[in-house]
Amino acid sequence: MIPRYSRPEMVAIWSPETKFKIWYEIEAHACEAMADLGVIPRANADAVWKAKDVTFDVARIDEIEAVTKHDVIAFLTHLAEHIGSDEARFVHQGMTSSDVLDTCFNVQLTRAADILIADTEGLLAALKRRALEHKDTIRIGRSHGIHAEPTTMGLTFARFYAEMDRNLARLRVARDEIATGAISGAVGTFANIDPAVEEHVCAKLGLKPEPISTQVIPRDRHAAFFAALGVVSSSIENIAIEVRHMQRTEVLEAEEFFSAGQKGSSAMPHKRNPVLTENLTGLARLVRMAVVPALENVALWHERDISHSSVERNIGPDTTITLDFALSRLTGVIDKLVIYPENMLANMNKFRGLVMSQRVLLALTQAGVSREDSYKLVQRNAMKVWEEGKDFKTELLGDADVLEALSAEEIEEKFDLGYHTKHVDTIFKRVFGD
Amino acid sequence: MIPRYSRPEMVAIWSPETKFKIWYEIEAHACEAMADLGVIPRANADAVWKAKDVTFDVARIDEIEAVTKHDVIAFLTHLAEHIGSDEARFVHQGMTSSDVLDTCFNVQLTRAADILIADTEGLLAALKRRALEHKDTIRIGRSHGIHAEPTTMGLTFARFYAEMDRNLARLRVARDEIATGAISGAVGTFANIDPAVEEHVCAKLGLKPEPISTQVIPRDRHAAFFAALGVVSSSIENIAIEVRHMQRTEVLEAEEFFSAGQKGSSAMPHKRNPVLTENLTGLARLVRMAVVPALENVALWHERDISHSSVERNIGPDTTITLDFALSRLTGVIDKLVIYPENMLANMNKFRGLVMSQRVLLALTQAGVSREDSYKLVQRNAMKVWEEGKDFKTELLGDADVLEALSAEEIEEKFDLGYHTKHVDTIFKRVFGD
Amino acid sequence: MIPRYSRPEMVAIWSPETKFKIWYEIEAHACEAMADLGVIPRANADAVWKAKDVTFDVARIDEIEAVTKHDVIAFLTHLAEHIGSDEARFVHQGMTSSDVLDTCFNVQLTRAADILIADTEGLLAALKRRALEHKDTIRIGRSHGIHAEPTTMGLTFARFYAEMDRNLARLRVARDEIATGAISGAVGTFANIDPAVEEHVCAKLGLKPEPISTQVIPRDRHAAFFAALGVVSSSIENIAIEVRHMQRTEVLEAEEFFSAGQKGSSAMPHKRNPVLTENLTGLARLVRMAVVPALENVALWHERDISHSSVERNIGPDTTITLDFALSRLTGVIDKLVIYPENMLANMNKFRGLVMSQRVLLALTQAGVSREDSYKLVQRNAMKVWEEGKDFKTELLGDADVLEALSAEEIEEKFDLGYHTKHVDTIFKRVFGD
Amino acid sequence: MIPRYSRPEMVAIWSPETKFKIWYEIEAHACEAMADLGVIPRANADAVWKAKDVTFDVARIDEIEAVTKHDVIAFLTHLAEHIGSDEARFVHQGMTSSDVLDTCFNVQLTRAADILIADTEGLLAALKRRALEHKDTIRIGRSHGIHAEPTTMGLTFARFYAEMDRNLARLRVARDEIATGAISGAVGTFANIDPAVEEHVCAKLGLKPEPISTQVIPRDRHAAFFAALGVVSSSIENIAIEVRHMQRTEVLEAEEFFSAGQKGSSAMPHKRNPVLTENLTGLARLVRMAVVPALENVALWHERDISHSSVERNIGPDTTITLDFALSRLTGVIDKLVIYPENMLANMNKFRGLVMSQRVLLALTQAGVSREDSYKLVQRNAMKVWEEGKDFKTELLGDADVLEALSAEEIEEKFDLGYHTKHVDTIFKRVFGD
Repeated sequence: MIPRYSRPEMVAIWSPETKFKIWYEIEAHACEAMADLGVIPRANADAVWKAKDVTFDVARIDEIEAVTKHDVIAFLTHLAEHIGSDEARFVHQGMTSSDVLDTCFNVQLTRAADILIADTEGLLAALKRRALEHKDTIRIGRSHGIHAEPTTMGLTFARFYAEMDRNLARLRVARDEIATGAISGAVGTFANIDPAVEEHVCAKLGLKPEPISTQVIPRDRHAAFFAALGVVSSSIENIAIEVRHMQRTEVLEAEEFFSAGQKGSSAMPHKRNPVLTENLTGLARLVRMAVVPALENVALWHERDISHSSVERNIGPDTTITLDFALSRLTGVIDKLVIYPENMLANMNKFRGLVMSQRVLLALTQAGVSREDSYKLVQRNAMKVWEEGKDFKTELLGDADVLEALSAEEIEEKFDLGYHTKHVDTIFKRVFGD
Repeated sequence: MIPRYSRPEMVAIWSPETKFKIWYEIEAHACEAMADLGVIPRANADAVWKAKDVTFDVARIDEIEAVTKHDVIAFLTHLAEHIGSDEARFVHQGMTSSDVLDTCFNVQLTRAADILIADTEGLLAALKRRALEHKDTIRIGRSHGIHAEPTTMGLTFARFYAEMDRNLARLRVARDEIATGAISGAVGTFANIDPAVEEHVCAKLGLKPEPISTQVIPRDRHAAFFAALGVVSSSIENIAIEVRHMQRTEVLEAEEFFSAGQKGSSAMPHKRNPVLTENLTGLARLVRMAVVPALENVALWHERDISHSSVERNIGPDTTITLDFALSRLTGVIDKLVIYPENMLANMNKFRGLVMSQRVLLALTQAGVSREDSYKLVQRNAMKVWEEGKDFKTELLGDADVLEALSAEEIEEKFDLGYHTKHVDTIFKRVFGD
Repeated sequence: MIPRYSRPEMVAIWSPETKFKIWYEIEAHACEAMADLGVIPRANADAVWKAKDVTFDVARIDEIEAVTKHDVIAFLTHLAEHIGSDEARFVHQGMTSSDVLDTCFNVQLTRAADILIADTEGLLAALKRRALEHKDTIRIGRSHGIHAEPTTMGLTFARFYAEMDRNLARLRVARDEIATGAISGAVGTFANIDPAVEEHVCAKLGLKPEPISTQVIPRDRHAAFFAALGVVSSSIENIAIEVRHMQRTEVLEAEEFFSAGQKGSSAMPHKRNPVLTENLTGLARLVRMAVVPALENVALWHERDISHSSVERNIGPDTTITLDFALSRLTGVIDKLVIYPENMLANMNKFRGLVMSQRVLLALTQAGVSREDSYKLVQRNAMKVWEEGKDFKTELLGDADVLEALSAEEIEEKFDLGYHTKHVDTIFKRVFGD
Repeated sequence: MIPRYSRPEMVAIWSPETKFKIWYEIEAHACEAMADLGVIPRANADAVWKAKDVTFDVARIDEIEAVTKHDVIAFLTHLAEHIGSDEARFVHQGMTSSDVLDTCFNVQLTRAADILIADTEGLLAALKRRALEHKDTIRIGRSHGIHAEPTTMGLTFARFYAEMDRNLARLRVARDEIATGAISGAVGTFANIDPAVEEHVCAKLGLKPEPISTQVIPRDRHAAFFAALGVVSSSIENIAIEVRHMQRTEVLEAEEFFSAGQKGSSAMPHKRNPVLTENLTGLARLVRMAVVPALENVALWHERDISHSSVERNIGPDTTITLDFALSRLTGVIDKLVIYPENMLANMNKFRGLVMSQRVLLALTQAGVSREDSYKLVQRNAMKVWEEGKDFKTELLGDADVLEALSAEEIEEKFDLGYHTKHVDTIFKRVFGD
């Protein structure tokens, strides 16, 4: 996790304080359930709630851990310092560390997912607003980086909206994947603890009980979770690359927002770098790199080995923090992206109408000219545009052979942009509904 | 794709014959829709169906492509050879190659997903059968590869069932991700073709129309698809590793089925290698390696670049063929896995009752012995087991200090396996329902 | 492996015929060494050479394998059909299959590496030629896709040359990594075969004996090999991305070669797609995806498990074939790349001299104008260029305040391109030597 | 970076203090070189050295950066606070930020590599010591996790030594890959700075000048660097997996060192978990996950884009810190690994001599018994071992048919372990030299 690419709310989820708070809640709810079952005295269960408003002292717990060499025991020892060691004596009874650790990890991932979902909703709002704003802003569509046919900037935003909307659905599924808890003991048989405890704790924490766990919650869930984040990050890269292309000096159809006072912007107005989207391209790689180790974590030995743990200590916080930051940064970029419609038109007309050559070719054929002759007619006019800088439409209108097949009106019609935008409304309805 | 790791039904999806058949269907349905719209003559649309039962001649199409340097044009030329070039003249009107290629690719992926879903259902049936069969077969649960507490072989199978059942759900979602088609023209604006054509073709092919495409169907869908396959393959690895561990010489709790006549098996009965599950471990890596390039494919330049194409030509067939083979092989392994319950018991008893030491320790404490004294009592008996090969229960029953705290009956009870299996039914209900 | 992305020489290395030929050579040389040691009769060793010119019958071997279920035994059986079963009876004595398989795999990888090395040398020759040709062809250097300072096209080629020259060195190291053989028996102890056999066979095949093998040659070697290929492929992507950028409609500083007769090129001269370099971008991903499974292959269980095998059956041929094709395709692209120096100049001058604003700013400061005043002077002239389409140098020459600090000559000098190219020779000497 | 998996010396390389110190050295040496060239006054160059012993104030620099929004400018401003702003006015002249950032990054990577090299040398020493110690400690060699033929524990250590020795060579090459610096200006043309400055600074910092840079040092170097680290980490996983297997309850041929006082060890002597090597398995994944983004970083747009930067801010420190920790932890594991030779023998004899069945089979054949009859003879005795728990050698010695072909002495000889260890010395010589 790199501080400069992080936001406080997500960072807080991964703080030791939050972790210990969640551990506490798991233990307290478990005691309550055990008291309900008559397994431990009610008074002891009640006593645990005395620490309800405590912020646990991380330094103190670290100090104890230095002696006990065990994080959960250190926490329990510290908890006893708050509620009294006699009162605390039934805390954690029949449980194993993993019951606490794995359930806590999933609470953290679930909360992280909630933030990522909210981030994505924010991004969607920005994309929709810009899509509607530029629904009719004409720009050239490009395949292979080469001019193809006209489209609109609104369609570009709508496309990103649709993609991010799919990602929203993926994030929701991913959230559900890891919204489970397990309090099932050393090998998952509930030998020392009743399944009712698991049910109670999970209900209180907003999780579903893991139908079958071993010592751990199965890691295919986490693999699917991180894979989903990898897909989202790749979509971020997709949008980032579009912005970077639009801001290229030769294209200049859009620019990341540049505050008036930003140094260098007016003395070197040509030198505004798309650094935010370049950064997003890199951040996407960072999120994506967690996918493979998360997949490698699935195959644990027998009822569990602990090889996944060091991986998750890293990718748990790092990946969610980075993706949160990236989604937020991208929302800002989209929100404030400066669009240059006039440059879009200028770019489209760079070759003075040649982008319409295919439409003219088709029209000639449909007017009965042989494919070969149509081709020659288009070619000889195209070459004058390409090599001598002439205007394509003008040349066609002045070519007697062309005029034999197509009227001036028909030629004009081939250069009508409305032809290309006539279904924009239909597409917008598909994407945004009515 | 490696022939030895492939099955004919899946391979057939990726044959040139199948591809051309799908191309044909797309074109024929599109003509029909265009005739419905009055855009092309009905007779021409009807004529296309003359080729309904044709198996297209791949060699002939290749021959034409060698001249035209364009696969879709080569196909169309060959199609005209079947239905007459005059009749064929409206085929593909207003469409671009990608309309055909991308829609076809998604048809292939959808069919591949259907096979993978059926494979997984077959695997689930095998896992369930073996789970029920060995519901009560006691074996030692292991964490870190070290004996922990007893569990049952049925729980192991049930765990894999639950994991594969989640994978089934993931495969269904993945199938839906890529079950879309697009016939939207050069940059996705429907400039030259009515959206109704797309709707008709998609309906006929069992796809949904892509709400907004450019020249291509957005690649986040494919990334999510291949990521799901990567998760499934990691679960295969998980099961494979379990079997390999069980078949280790020192463990020998299970063996891959070995036919009676298989060479070497009876002269060297100790030398039966888990080669199928080792192979599955490798195949899992092959499936998984497609995830990263699929994620890298998402960010295309503007309305499309063609960088994704060569990647998909490889991972489309290779990954689905390999995963199909792996699921099928794994089903066979599970179905015929030879289980050795007596070895499971022998392994559990390797240290003559020491696995129960934690339960005894707990019992002593609960009986009022101080934590420190309990520890010493357990330790002195454990050491006799560990170092002198004694039996733990016997030692405890002969230790007067222990007997002061626990009755012989209570000690016996700590070694009761029923304690560990009492919730197996509950877990089975969670996993398999009632 | 996709036929359209493959070349015959590399494909031949991976054919069954080649594989069996290498197996044969290993066995024949091993017999010779064993005869030298007096372990087997000389006559039997000599007899093996009778098959020296045989092309082994793959179909026949497959037929035998269908019965024996073992590829090496099938081959040996077929070999006996050629040289007589009595003569063949000492072939393979004391060896295990892996001795043959692993040594053969490394022979194949070594030969593949030789081709890749030759490919890279060919690419280097093309890059050097184009670098020298365009040493002085001015173009704008870009950071962040934004114009920065002038550079030359020759420097771009020279940069790629230097990068590919490092890759050449990496390929040579990678070749050495896997140029080892092992004939050391079931667990690598030489229990049944003398180390002298290994030494002899390796010497004959151009390999070094693996200092310590188990049943297999250690897989860190192969991991390093495929990692090197991944680096090379990333450099291919790097060059491909440059070409794709240069060919963008708005940039058009270069184009992939387009044969005069190529369809569409003259009727739609604006529509030439950089499909070769887009394809190379995808091929780079395919080569790169082998790196992770090759790394995952390193950790085998004890003296060997066979999980690596299925992975290598795929990535061995696929990765080397794809990289060979990609290097060759890239060489063709570079060789025939059409460069447009006039467009390079036009692009550089897109903002009429503004790229020099930083140099002017520096000159003003050095001439004693305060940083703040310098900034204002540059800014007011820059804005006239940016907003009103004026020429920067002209504006400066007409600004009395600027002329107070800098003479007209000094201003002219700031626009001198020689300033930027004065060290090109130095850099070329560093890259290409004298 | 996770504090619990890090060591101070490596962490220090990546501290802001170290970074600023290196920046300072680059600037100071550059000034010196410029003074040598007469480009800036000697007095100003000398003045920079006034800060030679300063530890720069990170908080103060952050404070300035909050205003200037530029890290290098913030540093230079703070430097001026130390040496006087008039004296500082020529610092950084003609340089760009990347000259400082990229050269500094490579200094850091080079220093990190030096630590990793030293770590590996330490590991090699431990491996060699243990190899010599257990040169003759017999254990069973295993393929597929199944007993194969005897080998020695020393050969296992020697094998890891040889593998790590190759990694040492790879690390040295990797170090050289990134031991370059660049001070070449905005697009690498040295327009504003003489190449002599670069040469001087690099010489002082122990780097080679990058033969041709753009604004940045080419990223194929870094890709090769991180790929090498990925290979090393996979070898760590390889060793870790071996230890984990040896420590399995059923195998118990070795254990990670467990201090006498460690809680639980004597009350539950069967429950010592190989947590260090499990942790190493996970750490290996963390190191390896940097390989793909490092490869993706190679293809930058034109003379540079900044997409690589966020990736490197993470993987630069995280990967080197994690690998350093892992190498050190592994050295400790090897150094103190508890070996159980008696368990090794017990495991080897688990099937009472059956591991020798192949040798017996061969001996019978060589003694003239037909292959079929030999097989039957072995089989009937093997089955008595396998099914009735008999001893293989005893059975053979009591089988009259066997004795007809082999004398009792010859049978005994087949069970001689010396047969398997006779070339251990040869192999040790190959690995360790004389």
